[in-house]
Amino acid sequence: MSKEKLVKDVTSRDEDFAKWYTDLCVKAELMDYSNVQGFIIYRPYGYAIWEQIQNYLNKEFKKTGHQNVYLPLVIPESLFQKEKDHIEGFAPETAIITTTGVDDLAERLIVRPTSEVLFADHYSKIINSYRDLPILYNQWCSVVRWEKTTRPFLRGKEFLWQEGHTAHATKEEAMAETLQMLNIYDRLGKELLAIPFITGKKTDKERFAGAEETYTIEALMHDGKALQSGTSHYFGNGFAKAFNILFQDENNESKPVYQTSWGVTTRLIGAVIMVHGDNEGLVLPPHLAPIQVVAIPIQSNRDVVIDAIPKIEEVLESTGLRYKVDNSDRRPGWKFSEYEMKGVPLRIEFGPRDIENKHVVVVKRNTREKITVPFDELATTLPKLINDVHNEMYEKAKAHLESNIRVAKTYDEFKAHLELGGYVKMSVHGEEAELQVKEDTGATARVIVEEDLITNTCPVTGKKANITLLFARAY
Amino acid sequence: MSKEKLVKDVTSRDEDFAKWYTDLCVKAELMDYSNVQGFIIYRPYGYAIWEQIQNYLNKEFKKTGHQNVYLPLVIPESLFQKEKDHIEGFAPETAIITTTGVDDLAERLIVRPTSEVLFADHYSKIINSYRDLPILYNQWCSVVRWEKTTRPFLRGKEFLWQEGHTAHATKEEAMAETLQMLNIYDRLGKELLAIPFITGKKTDKERFAGAEETYTIEALMHDGKALQSGTSHYFGNGFAKAFNILFQDENNESKPVYQTSWGVTTRLIGAVIMVHGDNEGLVLPPHLAPIQVVAIPIQSNRDVVIDAIPKIEEVLESTGLRYKVDNSDRRPGWKFSEYEMKGVPLRIEFGPRDIENKHVVVVKRNTREKITVPFDELATTLPKLINDVHNEMYEKAKAHLESNIRVAKTYDEFKAHLELGGYVKMSVHGEEAELQVKEDTGATARVIVEEDLITNTCPVTGKKANITLLFARAY
Repeated sequence: MSKEKLVKDVTSRDEDFAKWYTDLCVKAELMDYSNVQGFIIYRPYGYAIWEQIQNYLNKEFKKTGHQNVYLPLVIPESLFQKEKDHIEGFAPETAIITTTGVDDLAERLIVRPTSEVLFADHYSKIINSYRDLPILYNQWCSVVRWEKTTRPFLRGKEFLWQEGHTAHATKEEAMAETLQMLNIYDRLGKELLAIPFITGKKTDKERFAGAEETYTIEALMHDGKALQSGTSHYFGNGFAKAFNILFQDENNESKPVYQTSWGVTTRLIGAVIMVHGDNEGLVLPPHLAPIQVVAIPIQSNRDVVIDAIPKIEEVLESTGLRYKVDNSDRRPGWKFSEYEMKGVPLRIEFGPRDIENKHVVVVKRNTREKITVPFDELATTLPKLINDVHNEMYEKAKAHLESNIRVAKTYDEFKAHLELGGYVKMSVHGEEAELQVKEDTGATARVIVEEDLITNTCPVTGKKANITLLFARAY
Repeated sequence: MSKEKLVKDVTSRDEDFAKWYTDLCVKAELMDYSNVQGFIIYRPYGYAIWEQIQNYLNKEFKKTGHQNVYLPLVIPESLFQKEKDHIEGFAPETAIITTTGVDDLAERLIVRPTSEVLFADHYSKIINSYRDLPILYNQWCSVVRWEKTTRPFLRGKEFLWQEGHTAHATKEEAMAETLQMLNIYDRLGKELLAIPFITGKKTDKERFAGAEETYTIEALMHDGKALQSGTSHYFGNGFAKAFNILFQDENNESKPVYQTSWGVTTRLIGAVIMVHGDNEGLVLPPHLAPIQVVAIPIQSNRDVVIDAIPKIEEVLESTGLRYKVDNSDRRPGWKFSEYEMKGVPLRIEFGPRDIENKHVVVVKRNTREKITVPFDELATTLPKLINDVHNEMYEKAKAHLESNIRVAKTYDEFKAHLELGGYVKMSVHGEEAELQVKEDTGATARVIVEEDLITNTCPVTGKKANITLLFARAY
């Protein structure tokens, strides 16, 4: 299949959002499907986006005193079953190694779906005294969850993530850690992904298996559906009791530790696609983009253009931006489509006329605005434009989010709002209402809203309202 | 168990090298054992060493045009069996997922022991034209091989590594790539690990399953045993034919690609321990060390010392070195032992007397030499000492290597040399001699020596010698 064909073959976003999404994943060369349903190949361009996220988070984790570690891929089944709530949540989704090339195993090994039990077991061995606390570990790895319905980046049988696991002497410290990490994720959205997250606490029903509290960052996709984009869990000392993670405090008393865990995944790549992308392809937030500026010479067989290329390269190099000069023999129009598809934030075009006039044309991917920039202002203008594009993208996503949070005082109003897409705020009678709403509409409670009740009666059950929730249909 | 006890408990290196090694792995907090035999926990200090190796290689890979990707953890059994030699080599060592928390799988999934077949399958889909070549990919991940005898870092059921996989239009290009990557590994030894490698080609018998040529980097451990520390394979077009990886050349002819793969693993951490370590613990090469300088105040309750700490920190910060100031309430003697155990290359001691005399004492971990450094020369002296320590460690390892390569003209001489440890060079009659030597002595051919024959007759078989090999007992 020719490249030109590839570019043209992307479905329109407004015609079929789901197909537009998967087309884009493949055709922007972010990923490819493997031979096993639900396992994807992270191609260089997709993996480079993940590496940008890793770089951002590794810096933040280090600043806040966290250390990277690596624990085993496998969990013995007996260890996995030590924490009852946790096993119930994950057991159906586990992939299990039962045999080798030579022998069947004496004990079945679960491929980690998440590593709480491995960390808990390790902590029970290395923690002795209050002097050993807090322990602030993070792990970058892949995990396996046997999901039936899969979709690139959003839900897969294997995905890449980081999982932080910490142990603390007090409840207060553990809770502060839970919220600190939620806050780092929120800033990741604001500073790197140009995505405004709604942050908040999950209801009991939506909580992580084994956690006492789950906090979440939720993003709103262009099609009006919500996407849980990361979570931070406070475990209390449930795991500590199940795994005997005890420390001697200052008075030589033996006490269980308090734990947290928190993670974001390659799902964030999906969020970026679905928040910012358009009919021409990806629109990458500039601080995240593997290529921030692409320079494309026009009539590149002309001497004047050939001579200008190293000068452009020198300017680009001086900015410290991630750039590419595409001087290949393909047509400029083909290149424009290609880099639009790949969502490169800024494109520089320069032909003989531009060089004569000592300027270049810069095109912003997000607005397609064309700006003529004098050559000697290019080095200072590019970083400014990068920031402009980031801010514009963030503000656009924020406006979309804010205009799609609606309040419902009746169940009919709720259903009507839901059809518009986005979030609907409603005060309800707890879990009973959540279950009913889900059954009737497919929407789920995304976060608890810490505000006064909107209505005293729950519009769903007719009972006394006791909690305000933000509902949405979600990925 | 108290820390003091831990430090004292390490076995002497010369008494029991194997026990010294595993003691050190645990007590320097590089790793811990998990609940599944052969799967280890990479603790923060051990993982930080691996991250230094990753940083070095990622820069080199990028300079040479390679891109990182991530392919699935699992290989369908049918795909795995497509390349006959390869499957024969790896089948006995595979771990196999056969079931999930809900259902048995229709097809068994091999947990990747290496990813040649996954890359080959992917390449068959994304390569069409000579314009798509070369493809230069690298992957950081863990792999699983069901080894019976395991030892931390050296041989495990799971280990961390990078695996490069490339595809080229010509044999020459692929061979140049194979050698280029071998050369990068060799420089990694010289520049980061302070380990001189012997590089060369493996014999047919020792070649990687499915490869046409395997090149290796081999290191000599302190106990005289060799350690294969990395490999670079030239595949020819064996995989390309088995997986139908074809491209259209400039004349529109369909041709199979030529491939390479190359990798180093966390085994390198084991090499560093066994080449440089001593009875006091690790001795880390300074460019690799997670902490390059540790500063320890003496009588740290004295005001003059308390006042000096931020000044020392300021100097350390200005050097750009990775440092730690340990102002905890433990005794200085305890701290000295701790950081010696952890192999920190430079230790700064400063007490009231030092501060009065406007100097500090710097102790080199490798030689235990104490150097008095005037305070105002500290910022310039430290980076110089870091380089000195690196060079001294490299030269020491090189001298050890060079004095342990011996030549044998008779089989008795060979056996006598072998008992001294290190390598023995001998001209032999190919594979027949290799098998005999292994049976008689346990030694294997490490590399082919590209020199004139030493003897015309093979001392092992009595037949005509046709190849010169470097033999050693190896891990």
